[in-house]
Amino acid sequence: MDLSQIEKLLRAYQRGEFDTTEAARQIRNLHYEDIGYARVDHSRSTRQGFPEVVFGPGKTRSQIVGIVERLVQKSPNIIVTHTDEGTFGEVRNVVTDAEWHESARLIRIQRDHTERGVGAIAVVSAGTSDIPVAEEAALTAEAMGNRVERVWDVGVAGIHRVLAERELLQRARVVIVVAGMEGALPSVVGGLVGVPVVAVPTSIGYGASFGGVAALLGMLNSCASNVSVVNIDNGFGAGFVASLINRRSEVLD
Amino acid sequence: MDLSQIEKLLRAYQRGEFDTTEAARQIRNLHYEDIGYARVDHSRSTRQGFPEVVFGPGKTRSQIVGIVERLVQKSPNIIVTHTDEGTFGEVRNVVTDAEWHESARLIRIQRDHTERGVGAIAVVSAGTSDIPVAEEAALTAEAMGNRVERVWDVGVAGIHRVLAERELLQRARVVIVVAGMEGALPSVVGGLVGVPVVAVPTSIGYGASFGGVAALLGMLNSCASNVSVVNIDNGFGAGFVASLINRRSEVLD
Amino acid sequence: MDLSQIEKLLRAYQRGEFDTTEAARQIRNLHYEDIGYARVDHSRSTRQGFPEVVFGPGKTRSQIVGIVERLVQKSPNIIVTHTDEGTFGEVRNVVTDAEWHESARLIRIQRDHTERGVGAIAVVSAGTSDIPVAEEAALTAEAMGNRVERVWDVGVAGIHRVLAERELLQRARVVIVVAGMEGALPSVVGGLVGVPVVAVPTSIGYGASFGGVAALLGMLNSCASNVSVVNIDNGFGAGFVASLINRRSEVLD
Amino acid sequence: MDLSQIEKLLRAYQRGEFDTTEAARQIRNLHYEDIGYARVDHSRSTRQGFPEVVFGPGKTRSQIVGIVERLVQKSPNIIVTHTDEGTFGEVRNVVTDAEWHESARLIRIQRDHTERGVGAIAVVSAGTSDIPVAEEAALTAEAMGNRVERVWDVGVAGIHRVLAERELLQRARVVIVVAGMEGALPSVVGGLVGVPVVAVPTSIGYGASFGGVAALLGMLNSCASNVSVVNIDNGFGAGFVASLINRRSEVLD
Amino acid sequence: MDLSQIEKLLRAYQRGEFDTTEAARQIRNLHYEDIGYARVDHSRSTRQGFPEVVFGPGKTRSQIVGIVERLVQKSPNIIVTHTDEGTFGEVRNVVTDAEWHESARLIRIQRDHTERGVGAIAVVSAGTSDIPVAEEAALTAEAMGNRVERVWDVGVAGIHRVLAERELLQRARVVIVVAGMEGALPSVVGGLVGVPVVAVPTSIGYGASFGGVAALLGMLNSCASNVSVVNIDNGFGAGFVASLINRRSEVLD
Amino acid sequence: MDLSQIEKLLRAYQRGEFDTTEAARQIRNLHYEDIGYARVDHSRSTRQGFPEVVFGPGKTRSQIVGIVERLVQKSPNIIVTHTDEGTFGEVRNVVTDAEWHESARLIRIQRDHTERGVGAIAVVSAGTSDIPVAEEAALTAEAMGNRVERVWDVGVAGIHRVLAERELLQRARVVIVVAGMEGALPSVVGGLVGVPVVAVPTSIGYGASFGGVAALLGMLNSCASNVSVVNIDNGFGAGFVASLINRRSEVLD
Amino acid sequence: MDLSQIEKLLRAYQRGEFDTTEAARQIRNLHYEDIGYARVDHSRSTRQGFPEVVFGPGKTRSQIVGIVERLVQKSPNIIVTHTDEGTFGEVRNVVTDAEWHESARLIRIQRDHTERGVGAIAVVSAGTSDIPVAEEAALTAEAMGNRVERVWDVGVAGIHRVLAERELLQRARVVIVVAGMEGALPSVVGGLVGVPVVAVPTSIGYGASFGGVAALLGMLNSCASNVSVVNIDNGFGAGFVASLINRRSEVLD
Amino acid sequence: MDLSQIEKLLRAYQRGEFDTTEAARQIRNLHYEDIGYARVDHSRSTRQGFPEVVFGPGKTRSQIVGIVERLVQKSPNIIVTHTDEGTFGEVRNVVTDAEWHESARLIRIQRDHTERGVGAIAVVSAGTSDIPVAEEAALTAEAMGNRVERVWDVGVAGIHRVLAERELLQRARVVIVVAGMEGALPSVVGGLVGVPVVAVPTSIGYGASFGGVAALLGMLNSCASNVSVVNIDNGFGAGFVASLINRRSEVLD
Repeated sequence: MDLSQIEKLLRAYQRGEFDTTEAARQIRNLHYEDIGYARVDHSRSTRQGFPEVVFGPGKTRSQIVGIVERLVQKSPNIIVTHTDEGTFGEVRNVVTDAEWHESARLIRIQRDHTERGVGAIAVVSAGTSDIPVAEEAALTAEAMGNRVERVWDVGVAGIHRVLAERELLQRARVVIVVAGMEGALPSVVGGLVGVPVVAVPTSIGYGASFGGVAALLGMLNSCASNVSVVNIDNGFGAGFVASLINRRSEVLD
Repeated sequence: MDLSQIEKLLRAYQRGEFDTTEAARQIRNLHYEDIGYARVDHSRSTRQGFPEVVFGPGKTRSQIVGIVERLVQKSPNIIVTHTDEGTFGEVRNVVTDAEWHESARLIRIQRDHTERGVGAIAVVSAGTSDIPVAEEAALTAEAMGNRVERVWDVGVAGIHRVLAERELLQRARVVIVVAGMEGALPSVVGGLVGVPVVAVPTSIGYGASFGGVAALLGMLNSCASNVSVVNIDNGFGAGFVASLINRRSEVLD
Repeated sequence: MDLSQIEKLLRAYQRGEFDTTEAARQIRNLHYEDIGYARVDHSRSTRQGFPEVVFGPGKTRSQIVGIVERLVQKSPNIIVTHTDEGTFGEVRNVVTDAEWHESARLIRIQRDHTERGVGAIAVVSAGTSDIPVAEEAALTAEAMGNRVERVWDVGVAGIHRVLAERELLQRARVVIVVAGMEGALPSVVGGLVGVPVVAVPTSIGYGASFGGVAALLGMLNSCASNVSVVNIDNGFGAGFVASLINRRSEVLD
Repeated sequence: MDLSQIEKLLRAYQRGEFDTTEAARQIRNLHYEDIGYARVDHSRSTRQGFPEVVFGPGKTRSQIVGIVERLVQKSPNIIVTHTDEGTFGEVRNVVTDAEWHESARLIRIQRDHTERGVGAIAVVSAGTSDIPVAEEAALTAEAMGNRVERVWDVGVAGIHRVLAERELLQRARVVIVVAGMEGALPSVVGGLVGVPVVAVPTSIGYGASFGGVAALLGMLNSCASNVSVVNIDNGFGAGFVASLINRRSEVLD
Repeated sequence: MDLSQIEKLLRAYQRGEFDTTEAARQIRNLHYEDIGYARVDHSRSTRQGFPEVVFGPGKTRSQIVGIVERLVQKSPNIIVTHTDEGTFGEVRNVVTDAEWHESARLIRIQRDHTERGVGAIAVVSAGTSDIPVAEEAALTAEAMGNRVERVWDVGVAGIHRVLAERELLQRARVVIVVAGMEGALPSVVGGLVGVPVVAVPTSIGYGASFGGVAALLGMLNSCASNVSVVNIDNGFGAGFVASLINRRSEVLD
Repeated sequence: MDLSQIEKLLRAYQRGEFDTTEAARQIRNLHYEDIGYARVDHSRSTRQGFPEVVFGPGKTRSQIVGIVERLVQKSPNIIVTHTDEGTFGEVRNVVTDAEWHESARLIRIQRDHTERGVGAIAVVSAGTSDIPVAEEAALTAEAMGNRVERVWDVGVAGIHRVLAERELLQRARVVIVVAGMEGALPSVVGGLVGVPVVAVPTSIGYGASFGGVAALLGMLNSCASNVSVVNIDNGFGAGFVASLINRRSEVLD
Repeated sequence: MDLSQIEKLLRAYQRGEFDTTEAARQIRNLHYEDIGYARVDHSRSTRQGFPEVVFGPGKTRSQIVGIVERLVQKSPNIIVTHTDEGTFGEVRNVVTDAEWHESARLIRIQRDHTERGVGAIAVVSAGTSDIPVAEEAALTAEAMGNRVERVWDVGVAGIHRVLAERELLQRARVVIVVAGMEGALPSVVGGLVGVPVVAVPTSIGYGASFGGVAALLGMLNSCASNVSVVNIDNGFGAGFVASLINRRSEVLD
Repeated sequence: MDLSQIEKLLRAYQRGEFDTTEAARQIRNLHYEDIGYARVDHSRSTRQGFPEVVFGPGKTRSQIVGIVERLVQKSPNIIVTHTDEGTFGEVRNVVTDAEWHESARLIRIQRDHTERGVGAIAVVSAGTSDIPVAEEAALTAEAMGNRVERVWDVGVAGIHRVLAERELLQRARVVIVVAGMEGALPSVVGGLVGVPVVAVPTSIGYGASFGGVAALLGMLNSCASNVSVVNIDNGFGAGFVASLINRRSEVLD
């Protein structure tokens, strides 16, 4: 709720367009559409430059289709994460330009391709198995108007692989590093660059990786000071945060 | 075992209706029916105003049907939780007015609709994915004689959504708040109302949500003093506790 | 922020008492006093019938004294938890009727003794070592206008001890059960009474009690449906929740 | 390796029946049969009055059949745990008197029915869902020559149910208590009897039961001093330990 | 509450010695002495052949002295665990024959030295550092009328040390094994003997021993079927359970 | 190691200033000063616009003084975290303009006050007890050339407190949110602003806060997409990351 | 990157074969082949005497085939772990001499059979269920040029079984010990031999084995000083480490 | 117990030097000295080329002195770990050439300086704060006859520091890597060398380092195949294992 909206309401009220009860109600009933099982949040786009992402698990297919239908009326770019091809089929029935990204298991609708970033976002994966999460981050960043550089399979046990990409990394405005197992790559990359590193632990590994906990802890304890962390397998979140870091000042205002 | 029952037995004994051995046995053999695999507890209804709920997992379908058959003879309202539609089919064969609630995966038999509450119980869900657990709470509260207000999808990342429902929340005698992921909603709601908040963490989330542990810990550490917590995904328990909080004094006595 | 307050402001605004900017500011600047290191929340008392409790750890003594000084001007009853006798000494210098409760390590100021409860609150401890936490709950409930019945040392390994108090427990409007080690007492008490049970795990125990985790998990998994749980050693929270459950309807309104 | 066997070997050696190398080898090569994927331990029966139990998981069906075939030549009573009906079918092809116990998912061969116990072993389950594990304990105890009393569904939330069985429990030489969820029953039973209680946590529950961890911790922290604990769902182990406790002195020697 | 006591009360009641109310009260008010902060349990001795042990932590010194004073009037042998020499000094002021055991940090009063065991109890420690816990077990077993064999420092990394004691171990009626670090000794001892093994994990170790958790998990997962487990550092519990296992039938009845 | 440095070395080599062996060694021996117990990293300043922070724990006072002495020769601004006043005393002996910040337990040397940020960094604390960590973040951000807005004690249980600061928060280029207990504040703030939120869990709390784990998990599972997280109590890291986000493009290049 | 390679490049550069830019690029672009989804690391073979192993999970079948195709051109021996028979079928289409090892679920290509070890590697399994992991270790060690001695099913509960193999174990240059459940076998073996023991915990077990955590902790806390540990179920890693320990000096150089 | 010793005993027995009972006893009573609270293991030196290390915690000073006194009679080199200077004072009273190592908190007696290694052992620490554990490893390796290269403070956030030492690392026969926080250094070093890496996690760090758990998990999940791991802070164990890896063949035999 921004001040200008309240002031506008107050002036209408002062002009006698509403009575006191209605004015109070309008001030409090902020901007979302209630469709029963969800409150579709149309003000988020104003606040963050992007519509609400739809998190798939726990929702029925028809709920997802319903939410997407509402969002698409107000917002050019939409992402559905952690979903499946069947849901995509139903979404495409109502939104024909929806795209399916198999590796990331993600539906994307992208009608606006304006570039909004200061520089590039580098997305780095430690291993081949981490690519799906890295791809989720990259697709999100692109949907939010960024140029993305993908760097796959440069894990620390062959340190020369990441060193060979140092120049590319040092040109980026922000780096996303995606790694499972011991999650050591963000520390190494963090030491190579002078920009923020957004670290994404993945659930890749077995035994004492505990579904990504080892990588998560490694990243939280990074000895590189420029590393912050998002949830295990949360490629979307990393892409979102990196996009806001990279956003041009005039877009933010 | 209430005193009046013992006294009644003692008087019968004093009148010589039982010998000493039989009197001692009757005092100890309290009120339940042993059907081999279960001791169906007919005294619980007296004690708590509600029959034993049937927790589905680990029981065969025929065990569940058998238990329901006994309960239904003494008790008008019964709930079977964490069950499936196949079990419901078998229950309906013997109890034709049983209802199936798909979202909550719950069988309900409700023959008594007396209202027993002082006020309304508000049931609030943070996200669309949390609705099944919230619905379990709401259905339980209704079965126990309460008026229920459902408020879905008002999670804290769009704080205006819950603020818009403040009035409804402040009218309730008790609020149930159901949330997964970071489980922050009970703290916010707790700060808005002056009544008890029963918080239910859900297993919705992924990665470091650890099947609901993140939400559970968030709720246990709530900085709002009026919050107490039940087990992860335990909508039934929340509905039960809230019903007892809302119960009219004359019903409790 | 309740509707009547907004409406009052709007009318003053309509009468021209404030300009638009000031009206918008007042609507948003809600009720608290900013003293630099804390925002003392004077609206909480209106909302919950009790002033903000002061949680001691991490605050300097002079911060605690400063906060208490502000609170005492608006609120007759105040509690400082997890504190020490030295802090009490400094508080008493400025609030001479403050009381020190050694066992619970709690400062209480109680100037209002109005009874606000429907019935009594029973506070039950499993062992002698659990008394400090139970006492914190009892002192809180008394400060909030309740009659409290204390029942100490009735743990489940001598089940006859709690059975002997059944009558007392069954007369209460709500029961607080405080237990460490395996935390089994709330389940047993929950089965004996037909009112809500607020369970408080304590950190009493050693080895695999893990500082109260064993008791906490036991209580969260209680097979008694009328049990809800607060944080480990959170006697204050249990006393607070129980007080709201016991509150007379006319007080809540 | 018992002393008498070494002495016998030494005498044969002294009589010149073996040379020094062979004698040393025989002393060290103790009593088992190597069948490639397993060393079937024929000395265990001598040492513990029972053949090696076969733990199913991780073994192929033909490995299980092979091991059973060897064991059955030396030992009248055999148990295969955590197995399935398909494996049973293959075992019965070679051992026609093998029995399948569906609830416990256990194969039992019992040719020797000698009673070896001082008294009875009571096996108690907290809920209906805990019966499979309790049944595994009971079947094991019977196979080891004990009289077993089964007491099902006497969980602590209806404390009168277990109190009603106090007499039966107090007559047993040892009590096995099987419980999931909060695992409180062993403490209550432990307080009622003056004999050892062997507690078995089960994985029954959900959410913060963490697959039986809540019950396990509850039992390890039992305030009853006569409780010891075996692994989650380890009905076999409890039956085994209880059998050794109940064993007559002349059998032990 | 045993049946004979109820029957006796009932007969007195039938003879008119009490009225109905008094009879009901007496039946329910079972056997303990309420001293405010504790309910001293005089019936436990009848039920388990031993008075309530006093667990020190969380009790003030004067509470411990008070409890011991009451217990000593009815019971010849008493143990206070997890205590300190200062408390011992105060206990000795009122019970002059109390003994202080520095290593186990335990106060013992032992006036009755009757032997109640079938055989000996072997108490085995894996390392020198585990002796305090092992000593707590041994002192408890002695106080409960058992002959104890101590076997110190025979951990599995020098397997010949425990093998050298095999004969002693095989003569015992029950073996207590106390081990920290990896907690492997109970499995080895369990394989050597045909009697129950009570395993006690200790908090000895560092790093990934997690205060005894590694040893505890090792023991719960023992591949020897005759092992049951008590809490970390719970020497008392192991001594208690072992004493009940070793108890002569005529003592149990 | 940047390309221009290698090229410069190669040219010197080509001119014959070094032989081949020496050239290879120089290429590999990169930029740090070895003082025995530490390799002081003078190239970090070039890479990240800030000297190496000194993490106090595990280092002796004289090691800290030694490291600071080397750093101060090349770098105008230095921070020592998690340290104490005694160490500060020794540092001030050699660097007289060092400042001691008691609340944050941090030594700061700040000789360069150039502003390098695009906008302001808002630092928000949920409670008074979280101020020390928040202060560490704020001091770090200032040392790195940023304008900082401090907002203390606006936790979610009194949601109006943070709403009242919405305007200030919405003007910042990046927001740091510091919270203990349930760690819910970053989600609420994340929903209010359209810039990156760097969340810092603190170890404030007790019981099931597990030293900050509850807050950490809450933040990792935030339903606000613009939140990334640093380690528990890592105010320094948050200040560092936020400074890089806020850095002007011309400073980054 | 070894010095001799740099020196060779530098000489070519000095001879004018490259310009400065190209020389710098070549020094940094180290040895791997980029195939889009993976950087196949041809320098690892030089560094460690073995090609990169292919870890199956998270990779598509065509990715695995693609990686194997590249590796096989430079390296005679290759291993794919944690894979399935379907993948093997596709690999065999392009590499006809690939072998499928069902128990270990591993594809092996072995064209070079040179022996590179000083002595034998003993691979020991505690139980029959641990054989798949043990077999993965043994197959790896063979592929790396070692003679392997397999010793199956010698768990500690029948200590005579491992004692009987002492001689074989004492002849080995390094021993791999594979165990699930309590993971005690490495400590016992460690005490019997004077060479390094590489311990592999397996996920065999149930309940409190927590998927191998109990065994892992047991091994990390081993009281035998010659034990080091690899990840749960990581037979490959153990075979690899053991091969390097056993490697002849002339092979290492 | 080696075969030759048994054969010698058997021959003496055959010559009639012992009777049968005595021979059997001698075969079983293997090589250690029982001093009451400890069994000093004189055969370990034969088995592993090194006397039993004395682990300090949980032992009284006089116990440590007593154990050292016995060991010193048979073994030239002894280490006491995790001890303090006071204990050192008492040890030096009886063993005047004992050395105190403050950083590692370790007592060393080293009378034999024979070199037993094939090559050098490199000991690497990630940070200055990790030096005490690294020093414990280095001192152990020296005491076992190895040449040690110390490389301090080369953590991964400044990757050029470890790359600068590549040559030194590649010359070693085995590398010990000691790291706290995220524990990433062993993976990087593992990728640089072709020999075994023994990784030691340290408890250095705070917050989500959980006393070394983050580093431990990082190392167990290392993507470098040549890494094995010992317990948190177990410098001694790493030094021991590395010494056995480096041992010359003729010493092992």
